Amino acid sequence: MDMRLPQQQLKARYDAVRSRSLAIAEPLTDEDCGAQSMPDASPIKWHLAHTTWFFETFILERMEASFAPFHPAFRVLFNSYYNGIGDKHPRAQRGLLTRPAMSQVRAYRADVDARIARLLTGELAAEQSAQLAELISLGLQHEQQHQELMLTDVKHLLAQSALLPEYVDTPLPRAADAAPMAWLAFDGGLTDIGHDGDGFCFDNELPRHKQYVAPFELASRLVTNGEYLAFIAAGGYFNAALWLAEGWDWVRNQNLNGPIYWQQDGDGQWNEFTLHGAQPLDPQRPVTHLSLFEADAYANWAGARLPTEAEWELAAAQASIETGALHPAGADASGLQQMFGHCWQWTSSSYAPYPGFSVAPGALGEYNGKFMLNQYVLRGSSCATPDGHARASYRNFFPAGARWQFTGIRLARR
Amino acid sequence: MDMRLPQQQLKARYDAVRSRSLAIAEPLTDEDCGAQSMPDASPIKWHLAHTTWFFETFILERMEASFAPFHPAFRVLFNSYYNGIGDKHPRAQRGLLTRPAMSQVRAYRADVDARIARLLTGELAAEQSAQLAELISLGLQHEQQHQELMLTDVKHLLAQSALLPEYVDTPLPRAADAAPMAWLAFDGGLTDIGHDGDGFCFDNELPRHKQYVAPFELASRLVTNGEYLAFIAAGGYFNAALWLAEGWDWVRNQNLNGPIYWQQDGDGQWNEFTLHGAQPLDPQRPVTHLSLFEADAYANWAGARLPTEAEWELAAAQASIETGALHPAGADASGLQQMFGHCWQWTSSSYAPYPGFSVAPGALGEYNGKFMLNQYVLRGSSCATPDGHARASYRNFFPAGARWQFTGIRLARR
Amino acid sequence: MDMRLPQQQLKARYDAVRSRSLAIAEPLTDEDCGAQSMPDASPIKWHLAHTTWFFETFILERMEASFAPFHPAFRVLFNSYYNGIGDKHPRAQRGLLTRPAMSQVRAYRADVDARIARLLTGELAAEQSAQLAELISLGLQHEQQHQELMLTDVKHLLAQSALLPEYVDTPLPRAADAAPMAWLAFDGGLTDIGHDGDGFCFDNELPRHKQYVAPFELASRLVTNGEYLAFIAAGGYFNAALWLAEGWDWVRNQNLNGPIYWQQDGDGQWNEFTLHGAQPLDPQRPVTHLSLFEADAYANWAGARLPTEAEWELAAAQASIETGALHPAGADASGLQQMFGHCWQWTSSSYAPYPGFSVAPGALGEYNGKFMLNQYVLRGSSCATPDGHARASYRNFFPAGARWQFTGIRLARR
Amino acid sequence: MDMRLPQQQLKARYDAVRSRSLAIAEPLTDEDCGAQSMPDASPIKWHLAHTTWFFETFILERMEASFAPFHPAFRVLFNSYYNGIGDKHPRAQRGLLTRPAMSQVRAYRADVDARIARLLTGELAAEQSAQLAELISLGLQHEQQHQELMLTDVKHLLAQSALLPEYVDTPLPRAADAAPMAWLAFDGGLTDIGHDGDGFCFDNELPRHKQYVAPFELASRLVTNGEYLAFIAAGGYFNAALWLAEGWDWVRNQNLNGPIYWQQDGDGQWNEFTLHGAQPLDPQRPVTHLSLFEADAYANWAGARLPTEAEWELAAAQASIETGALHPAGADASGLQQMFGHCWQWTSSSYAPYPGFSVAPGALGEYNGKFMLNQYVLRGSSCATPDGHARASYRNFFPAGARWQFTGIRLARR
Repeated sequence: MDMRLPQQQLKARYDAVRSRSLAIAEPLTDEDCGAQSMPDASPIKWHLAHTTWFFETFILERMEASFAPFHPAFRVLFNSYYNGIGDKHPRAQRGLLTRPAMSQVRAYRADVDARIARLLTGELAAEQSAQLAELISLGLQHEQQHQELMLTDVKHLLAQSALLPEYVDTPLPRAADAAPMAWLAFDGGLTDIGHDGDGFCFDNELPRHKQYVAPFELASRLVTNGEYLAFIAAGGYFNAALWLAEGWDWVRNQNLNGPIYWQQDGDGQWNEFTLHGAQPLDPQRPVTHLSLFEADAYANWAGARLPTEAEWELAAAQASIETGALHPAGADASGLQQMFGHCWQWTSSSYAPYPGFSVAPGALGEYNGKFMLNQYVLRGSSCATPDGHARASYRNFFPAGARWQFTGIRLARR
Repeated sequence: MDMRLPQQQLKARYDAVRSRSLAIAEPLTDEDCGAQSMPDASPIKWHLAHTTWFFETFILERMEASFAPFHPAFRVLFNSYYNGIGDKHPRAQRGLLTRPAMSQVRAYRADVDARIARLLTGELAAEQSAQLAELISLGLQHEQQHQELMLTDVKHLLAQSALLPEYVDTPLPRAADAAPMAWLAFDGGLTDIGHDGDGFCFDNELPRHKQYVAPFELASRLVTNGEYLAFIAAGGYFNAALWLAEGWDWVRNQNLNGPIYWQQDGDGQWNEFTLHGAQPLDPQRPVTHLSLFEADAYANWAGARLPTEAEWELAAAQASIETGALHPAGADASGLQQMFGHCWQWTSSSYAPYPGFSVAPGALGEYNGKFMLNQYVLRGSSCATPDGHARASYRNFFPAGARWQFTGIRLARR
Repeated sequence: MDMRLPQQQLKARYDAVRSRSLAIAEPLTDEDCGAQSMPDASPIKWHLAHTTWFFETFILERMEASFAPFHPAFRVLFNSYYNGIGDKHPRAQRGLLTRPAMSQVRAYRADVDARIARLLTGELAAEQSAQLAELISLGLQHEQQHQELMLTDVKHLLAQSALLPEYVDTPLPRAADAAPMAWLAFDGGLTDIGHDGDGFCFDNELPRHKQYVAPFELASRLVTNGEYLAFIAAGGYFNAALWLAEGWDWVRNQNLNGPIYWQQDGDGQWNEFTLHGAQPLDPQRPVTHLSLFEADAYANWAGARLPTEAEWELAAAQASIETGALHPAGADASGLQQMFGHCWQWTSSSYAPYPGFSVAPGALGEYNGKFMLNQYVLRGSSCATPDGHARASYRNFFPAGARWQFTGIRLARR
Repeated sequence: MDMRLPQQQLKARYDAVRSRSLAIAEPLTDEDCGAQSMPDASPIKWHLAHTTWFFETFILERMEASFAPFHPAFRVLFNSYYNGIGDKHPRAQRGLLTRPAMSQVRAYRADVDARIARLLTGELAAEQSAQLAELISLGLQHEQQHQELMLTDVKHLLAQSALLPEYVDTPLPRAADAAPMAWLAFDGGLTDIGHDGDGFCFDNELPRHKQYVAPFELASRLVTNGEYLAFIAAGGYFNAALWLAEGWDWVRNQNLNGPIYWQQDGDGQWNEFTLHGAQPLDPQRPVTHLSLFEADAYANWAGARLPTEAEWELAAAQASIETGALHPAGADASGLQQMFGHCWQWTSSSYAPYPGFSVAPGALGEYNGKFMLNQYVLRGSSCATPDGHARASYRNFFPAGARWQFTGIRLARR
């Protein structure tokens, strides 16, 4: 990880990332910030406090001369999953934390920010300075991950209400007409996979290692709403032959007939709930909020398959990194489009350690390694991913049934 | 029901009851008012809106010359269980209604209050006036029921937080030392049970009917914390012989060893969470927040039993109606004590229609009748019951496992 | 209880009851006897062993000079619910007891029978003789209860198979045409309820006590299949207004549209699965296998109600006790019909202790008392009740959702 | 697949495999053969019928001149998971199929065997003969898979009984003392993975494809009971740091402290339930019946990891294929031991299609592909795998929590 950033630059970056979290909460009331719509999601307030807890626990507690916690109970209340740190407030009950109030959480953020600023502007031995830089980098990347979750969690929450309130009242910009989907051919071969170079990466992107990839083809763009409607119209949700066994149980037990935020009104018109409120479904935009089950069934129906993560990473070398807005947009150009900034792309690769991966000692070693089971890798980034957070080697992961992220379909075939 | 109240008096009563609901929310933040700690409980905000919905739906919609709803979605959002009215927001998801905001719910209350005031101060035909008085009486009694639930629901919510925040910061007044428990004898005989006279009552208190009651004895006061501690110390929670079969499964499956709000600290001292915050357990106060299972097991251990509701009502003719504060207090006098104003008292009577009971036509007929199964009657009133709401014929009811109400034990024997 | 029966007569009765249990298993294979179709039901083999365990545990273990168990593990394997006896094999896993084999269970029965015979034909002090007689009476009544369960449990098991195998291959006799239903009036008044006289009764039928019953009317016969079909045709299963709140959840969550053993074939004809195999539904026979929820909803639809158990018992003084065959038959006579021998009749009375009831000391005290919660009383007897087991004071009880017993509807009104 | 076997040889092989299934049922009673101990397991009778259904449905129905089913209901009753064939009897209720009786299932087997024999001994066109040979090969491999499940399923069933009955009454042979575990080094490189050559393989072993494998080391033998006891003694089941997040939930929610068939008696001695009955735990034998969670936690504790399936397959080129008895035996030799015939070996590889894999058309395409999600690959074979069924490219797969198979631990490190 990069330790050459002078402390001043680091402080500027710290301030920018930290203030963006508060900006995400800006359009919301304190009431909005406290509710938890499902165990998988967390309240905005909890995100704001937990990301602060991360800096307090992994930096201030280690590096402050005389550390005293902002509030002793916060160590438990805002621990997400670090067994090495101790007890945790039950995940499914984060929405019951009406205390501390949002105002206290803002005060918590301000206090930790001030103390981090003191560390960063103080005199530090070289080794300490390097450690501080490394931990702050990790903390900021961590906070950026939560910034994406804040948007997807609040979208899920707002969708529970019959009022279908919008997160922002700006209009959803018109999407470009999608260019025809083309198959782009890649040679494959014995390649190097994993993060390369000096910039930040998470431990799960390492070590860089050799992998043999057979020749393959990748779709030039994401699958659109219009294409997915054709799958629905063809009875895709009711044809067992298209689904994985577990996916078929999943889709029938919940009696599903379309993506999570799609609703058909009385005269058959589909609408989509977005962060801009309910909108008529635009056939030109990428279909999003799909489970791996749905993505895989669609691919089967289309006579294609999902890419592996190695295929995706190999292709991504050609792609430019875009940063999105609050909803995926259309792709009207040719060539490899929409690799970043629209929808995370399900791969067929289960989330597993790279050859030679080892878990770091201490509680921070719980960051990634222990989740490498029964989850699947998503590649790219989405419209909700913060600027500067995406890269070609990035490995996102969710269980196959997760639908509340901005997830979409990139097809592959050989 | 009493229709002789002049409309002016009714308006004064309306204003008093309605403003008390807002007063209950006063010590709470808007965040506190939105959370739902379990499916059985509701957010304060939901209570404030639902009680308003009751007036809007059952009075304004019927009696306003040109009715328009305050908000069309509220008819669904704040319907509790009236199938006759139509759809309902899912009960377990009331905590997700961050919209409407508390401020909108306050505006909803103000709007409905103003419209009710217009009806009450307007010219009405005698029949209409009588109907209006009857419906407002019902609406106010309904709101008083919710006022008690607001206190017990918010207590349950606050108890979920490691911070154990207090609802009020006033100190819990010292309780009187409990007088020794005495057995009071009653002759029984062929008696009349059910509501009598002109005052308001719910349909489930009617018709007044004959019931034969064998001679019995009733404890002079409620069981105290100290007495209940002796039951715990004697291994009461681990002795199958004391429990109903379903109670034994209930207590062991949840691995319980004491009342819901009791906690034992490191050196063995018991504390009790109250609306005044955590307090050392006072052995002189009545034990409260017990399930019927616990009350019944205690009675078995004490060589006694729970009273029937007829026994309780027959005895209550001698009792004066007290109104409590936010926690049950001690009883230092002799004679029949604590029948009202401290803890609801579990009876052994299942909640069933009185002979000749019939359900009213229309949606209001859903008020009581359809719940007369697998619930048990509680008699008296609690420290959380509003002034003027209690009476000897009142029938409260909950499932046998409910613990979050102010429920206690009155022993009986023959 | 009756202790004057000479031991010889008792032995004859013992032999008759015990051999009937084996006769019930006669039409079944050993494979049929081992399976358990749901946690509420038990395998035939388990019934045969448990009823034997009852004699071994409560008689031989207490009264044999030098007791040794037939098999030490059986004390646990065949204990149903007696915590006072010790551990139990998990109820839901009774179907996994492929060992002991049916042949061993037959040997167990023969061994215990021989030892009971030795006790009965031996010299006994008067007090011992009386105790033995009392315990054997209880054991035989207990076995008769299980004989009814054997038939209802095996019916439920056979109904799970697509083959719909018949229990007996004899034809189901044609039912008489039902006489028109008439309302019979009863005066009520202050009456004595509970068992009277010298014959055997269970503890829950005692003590006999006074109860006031208001005047009422009772239907002359059970509700027929034809009448119940009219309720279905009128949309009864889809009309919330007819159902208890818990019943409505029950019926909709399971998406029910008729009684458990009814099936509608392609051209709309209803068939009923019986112990004689699948049969065209006979509109003249009583409807059976209903939950309390269904019985109550039907009564509401019919403008009537279910009787209380006191009303039923008061009326039953006029009824003669019939013993049925394997399916309820029609009633073509006038006057009070079908009180016994066809369908158990749901009452609106929750199962509760009679005034003055007390639980016997020791494990046998677990026989009835601990089940007196969240169950409802059924009166009469069914086509599956053994000859000699029914009486007017008998209190059967099941949870409101139970459907696998021969349960039907007797209407009441005031 | 191999189509050159003359039909006569094929018939001999058919007879041998088919009769072995009946031999497995030999030590069991008909009652044993009917019970189902959990939804994941099936009754022996069901296995015997389902493997026959496979031949009837996929061969006789396609190739008999005038096909008539042995019993029309069997098509549904004994369909396991082929949606392309139609309805299925619910998996969790296979233990309720007391009809057809074992005797009928034996008759079903005899009938299908005779009809297959007629096909095999009749005149067939070359193309038909090849198709027949291919389908019979598949059917026999399928039956061998079920033969292994019959042994593991019946072991699970017998373990549910307090009687702990043995499957065979022959003594468990004494195990050799385990040789010290050695690390064997492999060079890896760009290798070919997947089935090669003419013999039978399942579709999931194809296509053979290139894969790059980094240098690695593999343990010379399986982990022993004695080694696993040291992990338990070191608190392995209570140390979160050793477990995958999902594994930690799994182990703590079930409150586990050792392998599924291990029991500690009063004086601390561990016993193991085997197909030879309960036995003192032998520290020299391989530990077996572990979940992937346990195998992975042990590997972490031992400072090693599980192999990938490619590593395992690459190493297996050196191993000789052993066929086991009813329990894993010790390994006292040096070199690569126990690759086959003792315990299936968990790999870290999720079960996924090989590059270029495609699902066959028709219902037989459901054989493997649709299960390629949230399952993990096991390699090798076990003591319960039939002779002739194992090969180096074989891919077995189970969910991470499965414990009732003969699964063990082969360590790897790089």
